[in-house]
Amino acid sequence: MNSLNNTKPSLHTVLTPQLLDLYEIKDSIVVIIDVFRATSTIATALYNGASKVIPVDTAELCIEVGKQTGGVTVGERDGKIIPGLSYGNSPSEYPRSFIENKTLVITTTNGTKLLHMALKQGAKNIITGSFPNLSKVVEFLKSQNAPVILGCSGWKNKFNIEDVLFAGAVIEEVKAHFEILCDSSFMANQLYLQQKDHLTEYIKTVTHWNRLAAFGLEADMLYCISRDTAPSLPLFKEGALVNQA
Amino acid sequence: MNSLNNTKPSLHTVLTPQLLDLYEIKDSIVVIIDVFRATSTIATALYNGASKVIPVDTAELCIEVGKQTGGVTVGERDGKIIPGLSYGNSPSEYPRSFIENKTLVITTTNGTKLLHMALKQGAKNIITGSFPNLSKVVEFLKSQNAPVILGCSGWKNKFNIEDVLFAGAVIEEVKAHFEILCDSSFMANQLYLQQKDHLTEYIKTVTHWNRLAAFGLEADMLYCISRDTAPSLPLFKEGALVNQA
Repeated sequence: MNSLNNTKPSLHTVLTPQLLDLYEIKDSIVVIIDVFRATSTIATALYNGASKVIPVDTAELCIEVGKQTGGVTVGERDGKIIPGLSYGNSPSEYPRSFIENKTLVITTTNGTKLLHMALKQGAKNIITGSFPNLSKVVEFLKSQNAPVILGCSGWKNKFNIEDVLFAGAVIEEVKAHFEILCDSSFMANQLYLQQKDHLTEYIKTVTHWNRLAAFGLEADMLYCISRDTAPSLPLFKEGALVNQA
Repeated sequence: MNSLNNTKPSLHTVLTPQLLDLYEIKDSIVVIIDVFRATSTIATALYNGASKVIPVDTAELCIEVGKQTGGVTVGERDGKIIPGLSYGNSPSEYPRSFIENKTLVITTTNGTKLLHMALKQGAKNIITGSFPNLSKVVEFLKSQNAPVILGCSGWKNKFNIEDVLFAGAVIEEVKAHFEILCDSSFMANQLYLQQKDHLTEYIKTVTHWNRLAAFGLEADMLYCISRDTAPSLPLFKEGALVNQA
């Protein structure tokens, strides 16, 4: 966009991967959001010095790419490490002392799928977003002057509140810079404004909290709604997420 | 369900037709919601004595069924009556003096499509809901002891706030009677509670308001968010919606 053109770029929020095809993805920046817990873990591992994170669709591919790259294989189903992989999907498993200069190969149910869909539909740039790296995401979006898609990973294609809350937090910071004509974005922003001063209590009411709390993951989830604790910018380049912060 | 079984039936909110296949529709009561303006118009026409409302997918079919039944043909695109049809999609066009004992044949972009999807997926009962017939919908759902799907018609498969607001209003009235484990329903109910005391101001911020206000339809839309002004219960039976109130 040149300096004579004052039109602001658009911003849309996609509530679940099943709605992605309704939006203009080509030439947009897509922010993949999977608050519980994939994108929070990715932000944390990269902030703590991981050299890159390779997202893959299946456990089989995770094992294979792990072998090829010498990377750490990561994935859970129902709160347990997937047989054949080495680590789980908790940000707490990736302190600097462990992950620095290592490659992570991660498979997740929802976020990875959405990332590959966005890639296939010709996204200009793909980054991942979560409360631990919120400010870096905001900074990047404000600097690019390009259309933005906030892509919520949800749960098996259904709508998840925690992802939309994060979208609302991003919108609150960037809305002066974009043209927003999108009910999903209005709703996300309103929900965030309504709940932001008591997020810790509020988050305990959502379905995903209850699903993961049954596996003892409360501390993980509280970390995942903490702002700017892992200020990295995971940008997808040549098959992997690398820290551009 | 027999009297020894204390389990409450489930309630889910489907944010757009494109998500309907993720839910268990078979044997559920599906409430078709298209606040601006199809289901508000249907409630009004039936309350004012229309004998039935036949929803059809296309303008061509609308003309054909209109001829067969001697019905009034109804449909708009972009705020104008579709060529070949006789009336528009405004509730104000259907006072008792005009519509009593007549058949309405209506084609709409979003609501009709969702109704036919729900029918195909084996819904037990299909009713239509809108603010003008809110209490009748609530009364029916509380009386049935069956799983409920609140189906938002949205706009071309995208999420629309006004439909979800109505879902939230229904949930507020029936939530003690259902087991609700659904983030879409939580969000709908929260949004409604947040906005219910200033709906008139709030509704002017949503995308659909602005789309229809450009056609001079503000008064129509204010009617469409008025509660219990047309207390009918449109129930789908043998191809048509009839008033069961």
